[in-house]
This record gives sequence, C-alpha cells and structure tokens, in this order.
Amino acid sequence: MDKSKFTTHIPLKNIRIDDVFWRSFMERVRTQVLPYQWEALNDRVPDAAPSYAMRNFKLAAEKTHPELDYGVDPAVGHGGPVFTDNDYAKWLEAVAYTLIWRRDEELEKTADASIEIVCNAQQPDGYLNTYYINTGLGKRFTNLMSNHELYCLGHLIEGAAAYYEATGKRKLLDALIRYVDCVDRHIGPEEGKLHGYCGCEMIELALVKLYQVTGDEKHLRLSKYFIDQRGRPPLYFEEEMKLNGNAFDWKDSYFQMQYYQAGKPVRDQHIAEGHAVRAVYLYSGMADIAKLTGDDKLLRACNDLWDNIVNRQMYITGSIGQSAYGEAFTFDYDLPNDTVYAETCAAIGLAFFARRLTSINPKGIYADVLERTLYNGIISGMSLDGRHFFYVNPLEVFPEAREKSMIYKHVDVQRQKWFGCACCPPNLARIVSSLGSYVHSLNDNTLYTHLFPASEASVSLAGQEVKIKIDTKYPWEGRVDITFTLAAKTLFRYGIRLPGWCRQYHILLNGGDISYTIENNYLLINRDWDNGDTLTLDLEMPVTLIEANPKVRQNTGKAAVMRGPVVYCLEEADNGKELFKIRLGDNPDFACRYEADFLGGVAALYSSGKKQRNWDEDTLYQPLADGVYDEVKLRWIPYYAWANRTPGEMILWVHK
Amino acid sequence: MDKSKFTTHIPLKNIRIDDVFWRSFMERVRTQVLPYQWEALNDRVPDAAPSYAMRNFKLAAEKTHPELDYGVDPAVGHGGPVFTDNDYAKWLEAVAYTLIWRRDEELEKTADASIEIVCNAQQPDGYLNTYYINTGLGKRFTNLMSNHELYCLGHLIEGAAAYYEATGKRKLLDALIRYVDCVDRHIGPEEGKLHGYCGCEMIELALVKLYQVTGDEKHLRLSKYFIDQRGRPPLYFEEEMKLNGNAFDWKDSYFQMQYYQAGKPVRDQHIAEGHAVRAVYLYSGMADIAKLTGDDKLLRACNDLWDNIVNRQMYITGSIGQSAYGEAFTFDYDLPNDTVYAETCAAIGLAFFARRLTSINPKGIYADVLERTLYNGIISGMSLDGRHFFYVNPLEVFPEAREKSMIYKHVDVQRQKWFGCACCPPNLARIVSSLGSYVHSLNDNTLYTHLFPASEASVSLAGQEVKIKIDTKYPWEGRVDITFTLAAKTLFRYGIRLPGWCRQYHILLNGGDISYTIENNYLLINRDWDNGDTLTLDLEMPVTLIEANPKVRQNTGKAAVMRGPVVYCLEEADNGKELFKIRLGDNPDFACRYEADFLGGVAALYSSGKKQRNWDEDTLYQPLADGVYDEVKLRWIPYYAWANRTPGEMILWVHK
Repeated sequence: MDKSKFTTHIPLKNIRIDDVFWRSFMERVRTQVLPYQWEALNDRVPDAAPSYAMRNFKLAAEKTHPELDYGVDPAVGHGGPVFTDNDYAKWLEAVAYTLIWRRDEELEKTADASIEIVCNAQQPDGYLNTYYINTGLGKRFTNLMSNHELYCLGHLIEGAAAYYEATGKRKLLDALIRYVDCVDRHIGPEEGKLHGYCGCEMIELALVKLYQVTGDEKHLRLSKYFIDQRGRPPLYFEEEMKLNGNAFDWKDSYFQMQYYQAGKPVRDQHIAEGHAVRAVYLYSGMADIAKLTGDDKLLRACNDLWDNIVNRQMYITGSIGQSAYGEAFTFDYDLPNDTVYAETCAAIGLAFFARRLTSINPKGIYADVLERTLYNGIISGMSLDGRHFFYVNPLEVFPEAREKSMIYKHVDVQRQKWFGCACCPPNLARIVSSLGSYVHSLNDNTLYTHLFPASEASVSLAGQEVKIKIDTKYPWEGRVDITFTLAAKTLFRYGIRLPGWCRQYHILLNGGDISYTIENNYLLINRDWDNGDTLTLDLEMPVTLIEANPKVRQNTGKAAVMRGPVVYCLEEADNGKELFKIRLGDNPDFACRYEADFLGGVAALYSSGKKQRNWDEDTLYQPLADGVYDEVKLRWIPYYAWANRTPGEMILWVHK
Repeated sequence: MDKSKFTTHIPLKNIRIDDVFWRSFMERVRTQVLPYQWEALNDRVPDAAPSYAMRNFKLAAEKTHPELDYGVDPAVGHGGPVFTDNDYAKWLEAVAYTLIWRRDEELEKTADASIEIVCNAQQPDGYLNTYYINTGLGKRFTNLMSNHELYCLGHLIEGAAAYYEATGKRKLLDALIRYVDCVDRHIGPEEGKLHGYCGCEMIELALVKLYQVTGDEKHLRLSKYFIDQRGRPPLYFEEEMKLNGNAFDWKDSYFQMQYYQAGKPVRDQHIAEGHAVRAVYLYSGMADIAKLTGDDKLLRACNDLWDNIVNRQMYITGSIGQSAYGEAFTFDYDLPNDTVYAETCAAIGLAFFARRLTSINPKGIYADVLERTLYNGIISGMSLDGRHFFYVNPLEVFPEAREKSMIYKHVDVQRQKWFGCACCPPNLARIVSSLGSYVHSLNDNTLYTHLFPASEASVSLAGQEVKIKIDTKYPWEGRVDITFTLAAKTLFRYGIRLPGWCRQYHILLNGGDISYTIENNYLLINRDWDNGDTLTLDLEMPVTLIEANPKVRQNTGKAAVMRGPVVYCLEEADNGKELFKIRLGDNPDFACRYEADFLGGVAALYSSGKKQRNWDEDTLYQPLADGVYDEVKLRWIPYYAWANRTPGEMILWVHK
C-alpha cells in the first residue's frame, strides 16, 4: 500500500455546511429528530412502545449507587432488547455533531445530564452495559454472538468521542476508556482470556476512533485483535454455544456463521455475505486497521469486498442488503427491486466504508458510491417532515402486494413514525449531522474535495491556513465554484473529484483556462494558489437513462433515470396507478424544472412515455399482438423524496 | 340454471384410453407410483421417513379388536401428522382406477387385505379416524378447523367409491356409510349437534359421490349442510377455538379465516382466497351441490370464483396458488413466476372444479382450463421416471437464488423422491389413472367430447349403444378422428370442443363437408349417425406466442410459447445459463420436430433468438446503450418435461 496517498478528512468543526439541500436535512435532524428521540429514549412519547434506554441506564445507576434515586420503579427490570444502550449512544453522537455546527446550551445541558446518569451506571471494574448490570453480571461476556455487548460499547465510544470533539468534555470518554480496560482484561488473545469478538460489529471501528483520540496503542491493539480473531478456527461462536448453550438463529440459512461475517478469517473474505449492516461496519473497521497497520492482505480483502458490493450487490440508489431474511446480502447480480431489504443503516455503513477507503487511496469510485448512497438510499430513509422513517428502502412498491403477499411483508409503503424502528433514525441523524466530515481530505501535498455541498472550510496546508469555499446549487445544478482564501500565495496541489456520472465538464480558473491532470477521476491542479482564486467546475448534468448489468435478471429490459447524482422514480401521485405498464419508448424527451415548493424543493423531470392500454377482454392470456399504448406525460421525482404524499405505487426501473 | 344443459360424464369403466401420450403417464402410475407408494404406506422404503399410514390403521385395529395382532409394537403410538389416513385413501382410489383399465389380481388382493385392516379399526359407533382412535377418542370432533378428520373421511369415501366401481366390492364403502352416520349424529344443524365443518375441505364433494352411489338423501343433505354452514356467523372455528383452546396459525395473514374459506358464507365468496387446494376442493363440492339442488345463488358463487381464478389468478400452465405462505392465493393479476407456489394438488383440484362446471353447462372454457392444467401444470409434477415429484411447480428457476435467497426456499429445482411429499404423488396418480372420466359427457340429446385422448368409449344414446373411438396424435398433432360404431342409424347431437387455443380448423365427415353450429365453443352436429361415420377435426397447431394481460406486472414485456395446449419453456440443459438474457426478437422463426427419444417423446421447438452479451466492464450501472446481442438457436421443450436432466435454470416467460 502506498502511504503517500493516505489522506485525513478534515474535522467537522473546521467546516460549515451552508448548502440549501443538506441544511434542510440537518435542520430536520436538529429540530425534529433529536428532540423527538430524546423524548422517546425517556419513554415519553404517547402511543409509542417505550424505548427503555434511559430507564435502563437509571436502573443500572441505582443498582450501582444505591444512594441515587432517579425515580425508577424498583419492581421493574431491564426493558426492551439487549441493545438499548446503543440507541442512546447514537443520539448522543448526533447531538455532538449538531452542537458543532450550532451551539445550543439547552441541548448540551441535557446531554451532560444524560452522561451523568450513564456514568453512574458504571461498575467498579469499569463494566458498563445495562442489560447485564440489570439482569445479572454473572452472565456478562457469555453470549458475545448475540447479545451486542461490545456493539453497544462501540456506539458509546463513537458518541463519547464525538461529544468530546464537540464540547471538550471527556467524562463519558474517560468512563469508556475504563470500560475498554475491563473488556481488555476479559477478552483477547492471551491465555485465560475469552478469545471472542462481537457478533454485531462496531467495536472495531470505534476502538480506532478511540485510539485516534487517546493515542493509546492498547486501543488500536484491541481493535486489531477483534479483526484478526474473527472467523479463525476453531470458531469462537461455536465454542461459546457449546459452553453456554446459546441458540443459533441461522441454522436454516445458507450463510450460517457468515451471517456474522464470522465463518472464516476476515482476510479470506472476498464476497460480502450475511447481515449487511454488520458487514459494512466490520469492513470499515478492517479498512481502518489496514491503514493504521499497513496490512496489505487486510486491505486486499477490503478492496475485494468493496468491489464485490459495488460491482455486484449494490442497488442503483447505493443501498445494500437484498434479503429480509437475515437483513442480508444474497448473491452477485441478485437485485430484486420489490422484495429488497436495503436498510437505511446498511447504506450508511457503506458510506462509512467508502470514506475510509477514500482516505487510503483517493479514487473517485469511493466518493462516487458515497455520493450515490447519500443522495439516494440514505436520505430516502427520512420523510420531509423529519418524523417518519424507512427501515427498508424499496425500489418498487405495489401496495396491494404488500398487503396480500407475504414476500413483501417487510416492505412498508409509507415511512413509519420513527419510534417504530430504533436503529435507522438516529443513524440517519448522525450521518446527516456529520456530513461536513466527508467533504475534504488532505495530506502533505494535496487537498482533495470529494463532495460538493455549499460550505466553508479551513485547513492547514503547507504551513498556511487555507479557506476553501464551495458555492453551488448542486445536485440541482452542475456548476461548482471553489474559492480559496489565503494570507499569501501558497503552492499546493488541489484535487477535485470528477463524478463518475459526468460525461462532459468544463473547468476554469478565474474564468480562464487552466492546466490539470486527471488521476483516478480527480482533476488535479498543482500551482501557486492566490487569495481569491476561484475554480469553476461545470459538470454537464443532462438527464441520463441508465441500464443495469445484463446479469441483473431483475432489470432486464428496463432503464432508470438519473440526473447528476440523483436517481429518479415515478410515483402514483403523479402518474396514476399500474406504473409497471409504463414504457419509456424510444428517445423520450426530458425537461427538468426546479420547483421550490414541491417536495421541499426539487428538480422534477418531465418526459413523454407510453402506457399500455388494458385489454377489452377479461382474460389472462392471448396471442401476442402489438400492444396498444397511450401517450402519457410522466413526472419524475427524486427517489429520496418518494412516499411523502398519498401512499401509492412507486417504480424506479421502468420498462424501456 | 338450465337443467337441460346438464350432462353426466361417462363412467371410467366405459372408456379405454389408448393414447400414446397419456398411456405413458398411466403406466408410470401403475408400475412406479402405486407399488412404491404401497411400500411407503407400510414404512418399507429405505432411507425415507416412515409414512405411518398402515401402521396407524393396524394400531387402531388392534385397539378396537384386541384379539387381532398385526405385529405393531404396542409401545408405539400414532405416527406422523393427523391426516395419514388420507394418504392410504388416495392410494386406494388410484388403485381402483388402475384396476378398471388393467385388471391385476395381485394388486386387488393387496387392496382387499388393506381394506380388511382399515375396517377392523372402525369403532362400534362407526367412527373411523386413526388419529383419535390411537390418541384418545375423547378429543374427537374438537378441532375440526385443523385436524382434518372429515377431510380424511372424504378421501376414504372417494377411495371406497372408486374401489366399489372397479370391483363391485363394498366392504369399505359400507363401513364408511356407518362412519358418515356417526358424523351425522354429532355434526349438523340440529340442536345438540356441533354446528361445524372441516377446515380442510373434501368431505363436501365426497358425500356427493357417496350419494351418487347410495342414492341416500342423507348423504346429499349432509354435504349441503357443510356447504351452507361454512362461514356463517358466528364463525364456528372461532367458537371452537374459544371452547377448546385450539391454536390459530394465520393471525398474521391478511386472509385470516378465509385461509379455510370460512370467513363468510360461501355464497358470498366471489374471489378465490386462502389455501388454494382447499379452495378448489370446496368449490368443486359447491358446484356439485348447486347442480343437484338447483341452487342458483350457489352456482353464481361458483361461476364468480371460477372467473376470478381463470381470468385473474391462474398461471399459463393452469397452476394456481401464488404464495408459499399459506399455500395460498394472493390477489388479482399477481402471478410471480419464481416465488410461485403452484402446488400440483391445487392444479388437480382446479381440474375437479372444471369437470363439474362442464357437467352443469358445457362451455369450452371449462375444458380449455382442464386441458391447460392437465397438459402442463398437473403433469409437470411427475418426472419421466415416475419416481420424483414436484410439490411446487415454478415457472422460472435460477438455482443460485434458491440456495441463497430465502424467498425461493420452497421452490425445488429438482423433483424430490416422492416420499418426501405425501399429498401430490397420490393425487397425481388418481387423476392420471382416472383421465378417461374427463373425456365425454352426455345428456338425453347430446354427446359431448371435451378432451381428445386416443380412446374407445361406449355410451348409451337414444336407446342405442354407441361406440366412439378417438384416433389422434394429440397434443403433438392437431388432427383428431372420431369414429362412431352403431348397430343402426341413430339420430343424436354430437358436440366436440373447439379448443380456445385454436384459431383455424377444418372439420369433415367421412372426408366431406358437414354442417354444424357452434355453441359455447363446441362444434355441434345434429344428424342421423351411421355406423362407421368418421368425423375429422383438424386443428391447426402453429407455434403461438402468448402474452399475459397487461395488468400482470410480472410478465410485462414478456411472451410465452405454446403449441396447441402445450406450454413450452427454455432449459439450461439446451440453452445455456442466464436464460433471462434471452430475447425472442422480432418474428422469431419456429420449427417443430417430434423427437421420439427425447424426454419420453415430445415435439420440441427450435427457434432463433437473441442473447444479450455481457459487458466488458465489471460495473453494475452504465448509461443506456444499444445492447449487444448474439444470435442464438433456442430449443424449447414442453414445460411439463423440464427438470428431467441436469438441474439448472428454466424460464417460461421470455423477454420479447
């Protein structure tokens, strides 16, 4: 691996997003998701099943410190599933990112108080998982396969590190360092320790984040241990089941232990298998360790897994996970649009993985996929009102099928009130509120821009503070202006991604020509930059019909519509029922119109099309005749914005 | 309803099938299925799970008559599911039909001995269900919803009536008449009786058959009671659950009590819902009762249900039941080819229903559907060796999907050894061996021919014995010669079905023109028939591309291939992998060649076609370009004959 290519993403606090598109999502997170979630974490949402998350922490705190009284009814035990701690952790992480771009004393006070409670639950030896504190510590570390202990710790670390970054406060971080010490005493390669790892990955990448904050090699070493040990024979989970009688839920599955990506050593894994969210969390951790330890074999596995996902198992929306059973990958080129899983969290995990690979080697494909999933499969998870969420993001829905055919049972045709699904809304909140940290990365000689949200950032380059401002109406328009503010002329290399979707572009410096090279789909400009230099990248953004690889049997004979990075779809609200009867016809004419008052402001597309007319006869089968088609006008909307009106049909891949 | 249109099918013993096509199936039933099943019923098949059917009868007989000793280990209890009795009953029924066309003393002796055992199990009050005799009679009639008691009785009646027809022996029939008396004492509309009916229908049509043998109005009345009472509020099954604490398996389903077609009165049912096999068994019984009692409202429900099935919910193969969950119907125009259920038994039940409607009103559509399912979706259930069977009959398989995606878990890509599925093989055996009883029906003034297997039958018409001989190579050739043998000139009307698939035909009498009328797709000839008169119906049988109703979203842009009544498909063994990449192209050229040594003798089709070439790039999505297609030669085989070679892909609906 070529370490000279390594870059570091600029910290969130060094960038301010001023993008019309993204600010609307960030505001929804700040004003809707976070307050609502806090109420939910405290079981104060009327008509909603309780979350139990804060109550579990309070109960654990009272057990640990009998002098405390949070008013928890002592008769009640631990509530909800084993992993409620992580729901709190993701909320805290999103709070932290939000505080970075918008200070809020009230919110910070709430967070501080919550941290107080959480820390009070910590055991004298550092252990801090409410499920086992509340139900019996004797059983801790006996079901690493299914009980999410280290997963919760991972999320808490992510939350604590973010909160430290946002506020400088390290109370929770310090508590978790002690918890990590406790884990380290019980689990690891040394004799007498459990040679285990977590069935639900997260701790791996979280420990790297912790290492980046603490600089403590122990944190890196423990993360590397979890990566190295995973899937090594004899399989820990099988031993653990024998010893503790734990149940195995995947006996009937083809993936077996690969559900947990734990059926073989991770360096021997080259095809994405099993639970999709867990997989991409693991792969992200693997990429971190590969980079930090210079482990070429591990990086090769990462690259293979990446290639397998993006070239064989990824939806056009950047979503992943084809099967509801196991919330899992299925196999190469199997991309059902209607029975799809495509969990919002999995798309988010893919973004994490992409960000890490970008930092190892800036190749355009990583940010292409990042952009694809951000503008499509991730934000499709949230409604325009910020209060309804998709867990599953279908590429096609036919409401009657959802009601009457069990293979569609998991596919909601409307976003659900967010408390119905605990994992996706806060995950969306944390990625949206940390978007700034995906935009630029740099190393000694180059500053790269991967995404183009309107923003202002400051970086230190060649000993100078450099301000980089992006002005754009992206993704609705293709023009991106980059302006540098410098105290003095500075020599550095600047690289800006040429998106994979773009066929024609123009680049100007201060309105004139400029010489550049292209490397891995980054336009590279090496020069003495002057204060006020403005680079204009004009990406032609025509409507483009896309086809899927011929091996994708579900999309044969169909096309999708994209403009720039945005994937479009047809909804019943605009185009009537029975959308599957629609054909694009030859050379459909597309017009694009930005409509500020439609769906929160979108560029809608208008095209001609054909729709097959019904037969006069009420029969099922007839000799093939030339179908009769009506000319229809189609309105296309960005996929992410579907299901914000009267529930109905939606299709993305349309017959040609 | 117009009773002048009623006809009666000629009894099986008055017809002899000499058809090359069907004799091969009948011989497989006789030489493979029946002997094998007898071994299975007696738990003598090595490496197979025991059936327990005969052992359960022996155990029950020993309990009833302690002096008997069949050598059953007294320590063992009832084996297998609650409904093993019906497995025996279907075997006996198929044996009976087989004995009619081919006497076999050995087989008859075996059947007689089995009947001896069964009758010895009967209780003094007539009750005869091994599950409750063996596990405790106190519980009988307490779970009519789920425990199949009357279903088993129904099948036993069918078997006993057939055996009586074949051999004149009525020992079992008489025993079952006593069992029916017992049921009648416990269940019925009168006060003090259980106002129930069976969750798994069969008793309704069986009691009609019994009535036709006995002439006892009680049998008709009891059948009519079961039909009338079904689904009437308060729902019996709900009351029964409350009273006896029985479990309800369909809480999560949309069909609820309609799983059993018991959610509303049957006369108010107009859309086929719930378990497909049960549904068509019920509808067959409803048609019987409608005909026998002149119940117009009941017939209207039958007609509506028929229309709903054949115009909205039937596969091109004549298979029904779209969903594995509940083995059930889903909804109108929902016909998934790959996640399909299409149970062999359901297609057989549809044939039963069609036969009954034909007898009420001879309209071509009934026999069209009967023919469609017989030549396609029914016989696809059996392998060429007669020893492997499909329960589920998919219209498309992609083996890797079956292995790696749970939505295909129920779809086998190979027929299974028959003992793996107890219901479909004997059901296939009984319909194939009773095919003759579907061919002709008649009333006072008209003899109708519905199907065209080469055969000889004798009927009594206008006081004369009339022999009717069919010579044909149908379905491979369209010419059908009908020759009448008469003692003297006889005036009668003869009707022969003009198949719905046929667009061009010629009809000649003794080589010359003949005048006829057409009514409901029957060619009707009213004349003084002479001995030796030969009618030649020549049905042009070109290869025809078929399209599905535009509302069938799964088949948009696709066509199927038929020739005559036979539906064709493409298999990997002939056409390579990735069949979904194949397109028919414009005006594909088809050649038809009968190949005696291929797949047991079939007319194979050969055509041109196109197959999309793979991309050079290993990517998933690209701007739409003109696809590159290779010209390919395609070999099409009859759908029923697929999966008799190396397992692989199969498609039926092919892209245009």
